[in-house]
Amino acid sequence: MQALILAGGSGTRFWPASRKLRPKQLLQLAGDRTLLRATFERLSPVLDPADIWVCTNRDLAADVRRELPEVPQAQVLEEPVGRNTGPAIAWSLTSMPTDRRDEAVVSLHSDHWIADEEGFRATLVAAVAQAEHNDRVVALGVVPRWAETGYGYMEAPGPPAEGSPVREVEEFLEKPDRETAERFAASGRHFWNSGIFVFRASTLLSRLSELEPGLMASLAEIEVEPSRLGEVFACLESKPIDTAVMERLETMHTLVLDCGWSDLGSWEALAEVLEPDAQGNFARGDAVAIDATGNLLYADSGTVTVLGVEGLAVVQTGDAVLVTPLARSQEVRRIVAELKQRDRDELL
Amino acid sequence: MQALILAGGSGTRFWPASRKLRPKQLLQLAGDRTLLRATFERLSPVLDPADIWVCTNRDLAADVRRELPEVPQAQVLEEPVGRNTGPAIAWSLTSMPTDRRDEAVVSLHSDHWIADEEGFRATLVAAVAQAEHNDRVVALGVVPRWAETGYGYMEAPGPPAEGSPVREVEEFLEKPDRETAERFAASGRHFWNSGIFVFRASTLLSRLSELEPGLMASLAEIEVEPSRLGEVFACLESKPIDTAVMERLETMHTLVLDCGWSDLGSWEALAEVLEPDAQGNFARGDAVAIDATGNLLYADSGTVTVLGVEGLAVVQTGDAVLVTPLARSQEVRRIVAELKQRDRDELL
Repeated sequence: MQALILAGGSGTRFWPASRKLRPKQLLQLAGDRTLLRATFERLSPVLDPADIWVCTNRDLAADVRRELPEVPQAQVLEEPVGRNTGPAIAWSLTSMPTDRRDEAVVSLHSDHWIADEEGFRATLVAAVAQAEHNDRVVALGVVPRWAETGYGYMEAPGPPAEGSPVREVEEFLEKPDRETAERFAASGRHFWNSGIFVFRASTLLSRLSELEPGLMASLAEIEVEPSRLGEVFACLESKPIDTAVMERLETMHTLVLDCGWSDLGSWEALAEVLEPDAQGNFARGDAVAIDATGNLLYADSGTVTVLGVEGLAVVQTGDAVLVTPLARSQEVRRIVAELKQRDRDELL
Repeated sequence: MQALILAGGSGTRFWPASRKLRPKQLLQLAGDRTLLRATFERLSPVLDPADIWVCTNRDLAADVRRELPEVPQAQVLEEPVGRNTGPAIAWSLTSMPTDRRDEAVVSLHSDHWIADEEGFRATLVAAVAQAEHNDRVVALGVVPRWAETGYGYMEAPGPPAEGSPVREVEEFLEKPDRETAERFAASGRHFWNSGIFVFRASTLLSRLSELEPGLMASLAEIEVEPSRLGEVFACLESKPIDTAVMERLETMHTLVLDCGWSDLGSWEALAEVLEPDAQGNFARGDAVAIDATGNLLYADSGTVTVLGVEGLAVVQTGDAVLVTPLARSQEVRRIVAELKQRDRDELL
């Protein structure tokens, strides 16, 4: 088995902590490791570093290699330009050894959170068995803990087939509206799409050749003439792996991932995975709170102080401060957009 | 006429912008001058710099002289230790030339705000005339604009004596409770005590000798032996000029100061004197606000950004951030006290 860690994201949702050249996966948002390093170490007990591949972009490659010195340098792949997870995964698979294509590949993001790491590995191992022995494509699905409107869902009526842990996925469902999300969360047959997929490389490559022949032809050109990587990549259509192939498979399975998964999609999501202090605040870095509770206080330099406020995200970096209600922290992109419009590149 | 600017305060109410060695009077809270410089320039049209004295402390003296290079260096008096305005004013008066003691002295704070500077000077000149021609001690009184509980009041039933702009003060009143403050604000006979006093030096010194003989004896020791300044000052009782002498005078007058005076006692008070921007925020420094109004956004370094919040003070300095509702900004001292208790001297 091999793993493919997707580390090309340049998320803006953790601005001002995250920046173009210091994206979320390179931040120590929770704990004392970067999310990328945590992802690697979470896999280590079941995977040799020589079996781990990382797909990132040119700007981040040096930092990624520094974070993961155990991973062979050539296995940190550098996309010349980001074209979403479809091209990233397809290109990575074609870059991996051709003589190992019948083994399972675990494709996962570098910037997610897992509370129960042992549980995670057990699920992964079960999914790998399904992929290798039954040639299944397995998406790990999370039992909804609330009516999230920011995630994609999978509908899998189950129950699992006899003697098997997997359920067949009936349908992939886009980010739902509030009402639909509430129905999904209560149904018992809908699961959050964690973005973690397990499959035989050969299986996915063959499905991709049927479903995305243009993409695969372009990747073949790169194999023939590696110097054309930049030029060819630039012309690829940006597409998530979900719509490129996963949602279009005839049969697709899900395995329930029950280990405190979070995609850490916002400051609010971060607060949800941190331990509150005695006053009920979630502090990272130096913070002083008086008559204040339920706040996320994040200082990657200096000291954050609050008095008489509740439910806020207060984030301080060397050069910028953000204050917003946690409940609105998904809208931080609006500030990033505004800064972009004002040509404040030094803050992006 | 001479002026005495009191610049020894080490206010904590504007933390984190104000610090022990960078107190409020040395901050550019509003406009592009420090409050100290603004106080000096407000007097300049009617006062020669050679007639201006400043009382500050040893730690701040160099900064004060740098801010006011026009004032003769020896006229920047350095208290070895702060003992409130009673000793500060009494000592300053004894330090000023003995042959000018029949002239009026204007004693005022270095960290207040005046919107209408011409109106201020006109009132000052009228008060000086009252002091010099009628030997009156005059306190400038502000018509209450709201039921402030943080100020002292003067009760002066008036109306002014015929042909005179001053009213006799019946009583000085300490900071009132909410209900009393509301009565005062509506009465038409109560005035905020601005802390600006005008008097003949000889008159105040003679009253001080009667009312505070111990203080004046100590100051006489310093005159005889200047090297004992530190030792003698350390033993003085800390006392405001109000309780030391003003409230105990047989006769005291007030002149109405109607020129947008504020003591800038809190971040909220600062917001009240700043012009709101198009979104209704009060910004000093680099700020970005989205769906946010009524906030004070103060950045003396870096950028402050807010999204979806209202009525907050957000203050960023190089090393610290403060977030608190403007309505609670008087409580900032609690944060300073907490930092003191934690031995965080570098933030004080």
